[in-house]
Amino acid sequence: MTNERDIKLWIVGSIGIDDIKTRAEKRTELLGGSLPFSTAAASFFTRVGAVGVVGSDFPESFDQRWRKFGADLSGVQQVQGATFRWSGAYDENMIERETLKTELGVFANFKPKLPQSYQQAPFVLLGNIQPELQLHVLRQAKGARFVALDTMNLWIDIARPALLKVIKKVNLLTVNDSEARMLSGQWNMRACAAELLKMGPSHVIIKRGEHGALLFSRKGLFIAPAYPVEQVVDPTGAGDSYAGAFMGYLAQRGRASEQALREALLYAAVVASFGVEGFSLDCFERLTFAQIERRMKQMLKMISVGS
Amino acid sequence: MTNERDIKLWIVGSIGIDDIKTRAEKRTELLGGSLPFSTAAASFFTRVGAVGVVGSDFPESFDQRWRKFGADLSGVQQVQGATFRWSGAYDENMIERETLKTELGVFANFKPKLPQSYQQAPFVLLGNIQPELQLHVLRQAKGARFVALDTMNLWIDIARPALLKVIKKVNLLTVNDSEARMLSGQWNMRACAAELLKMGPSHVIIKRGEHGALLFSRKGLFIAPAYPVEQVVDPTGAGDSYAGAFMGYLAQRGRASEQALREALLYAAVVASFGVEGFSLDCFERLTFAQIERRMKQMLKMISVGS
Repeated sequence: MTNERDIKLWIVGSIGIDDIKTRAEKRTELLGGSLPFSTAAASFFTRVGAVGVVGSDFPESFDQRWRKFGADLSGVQQVQGATFRWSGAYDENMIERETLKTELGVFANFKPKLPQSYQQAPFVLLGNIQPELQLHVLRQAKGARFVALDTMNLWIDIARPALLKVIKKVNLLTVNDSEARMLSGQWNMRACAAELLKMGPSHVIIKRGEHGALLFSRKGLFIAPAYPVEQVVDPTGAGDSYAGAFMGYLAQRGRASEQALREALLYAAVVASFGVEGFSLDCFERLTFAQIERRMKQMLKMISVGS
Repeated sequence: MTNERDIKLWIVGSIGIDDIKTRAEKRTELLGGSLPFSTAAASFFTRVGAVGVVGSDFPESFDQRWRKFGADLSGVQQVQGATFRWSGAYDENMIERETLKTELGVFANFKPKLPQSYQQAPFVLLGNIQPELQLHVLRQAKGARFVALDTMNLWIDIARPALLKVIKKVNLLTVNDSEARMLSGQWNMRACAAELLKMGPSHVIIKRGEHGALLFSRKGLFIAPAYPVEQVVDPTGAGDSYAGAFMGYLAQRGRASEQALREALLYAAVVASFGVEGFSLDCFERLTFAQIERRMKQMLKMISVGS
């Protein structure tokens, strides 16, 4: 028997404290890392479990802010040492960013352990962490039916064999366009996707930032739009929110049919578009599901051909 | 009384002889310039008139190839001198290109004259030429009801006052994203479009290359996809084919309603996608309307959310 409060989705990822500089503002000591963004975004659709690590310096206030989204944090370990810290600066157009500082802290020795209550969850998002750790935690996920994997150029570069091993075991791979090219050795997006599909996943999402994403499967191709945001305040975490909302919606639907995947990508674009309108989780804290639905309707009009 | 063979659309633009280098191939003495591409693309939908100039060296064979599309070339003057020549080289990814040579030839003294038979045509595409010439030819277009304007960074830079004058008189402005930013002084695409709409046109299309386009009007926003091409052989003229097919479809429909505009953008993406699969007009020569319809159906599936 399952009940409504069972965890249907869990996500593993990084938890950090960020310092961020944009053209307009400089903000320090922000709750960051992929996991707060992805779980906050997913929590608009489902109860989500978080798997990560923080240090002894992790502020109690961050914990409280995060919990307010209704995410289950029993998979977050707190250990002796410093929380992962990242600092970055965006160019004036909010597209390119420079990493000013990365201090792994307790993240360097992170060994994810899946709480008992997550082990039967059907949906899993392996956020961007070392591929060996993704494999390690996936082995504990006995009930996983639909596993999505995010990664980054660093792992393609320095941990390709381990990455290929985990890619083989997942249902969906999500990468951005430059990562797709790096991983596949191809340039054209359709050629990239054909190579990536040969690596094992039944689905590949190629993210193209403000241009949306492409969803490839053996069945076909979906051109997913991005919601055209009027003002980007801070794009940090946009990809994580996108992936989190996407998986949150699938978990809520309880299926990963072609139609559910396409709808999930639209919701993902909408949720991510709210996320970049403020720093850290600021906008998600104010966001209601009614606002998501309203923007979703607007976006459906923006991609519909009929009147 | 009008009849089926009346010109409903005419286009003014450049006619050139191109030398093009891609990673795979080097081709010389190609029929090029914006006008052959835009009129060939338009001719799949309507009978289109061409306004341009060629020199005494313009090969008879080019003339014959062009005529085969059924375009009316009575607006093309042949004068003493050399035809416009352009030569360019693409980077290995077919995105960036370097202009190796531009020789204006007879194009330097071009003074477009509208044939009598074009003057009542309701649809007009002012292709990318000097804004003063666009104005000059537009004054002769007594029957024009829906005028679209294409331009480029050069004119924004050196002929802004004249360009603003012609923009004020047209219904639709089409620019790419960097031109939109240059012309509006804004970065965000919605902010760019808001500024451009203030300049006069009721519609603005911002082209984003392989990422499609955005259509803005006071009524709303349409996110137009690009067709994901499997192999780009030569992207030269893609923007011109896109604009030509777009206007050709509107002329065939005889209206520029929101729905017609959206459909026109999809057809434009499809026709342009065929155009880049070969050099010059090669692919258009082999292209049938049935192939266009088939790819159009594929693309509609790629953007539809429902099953």
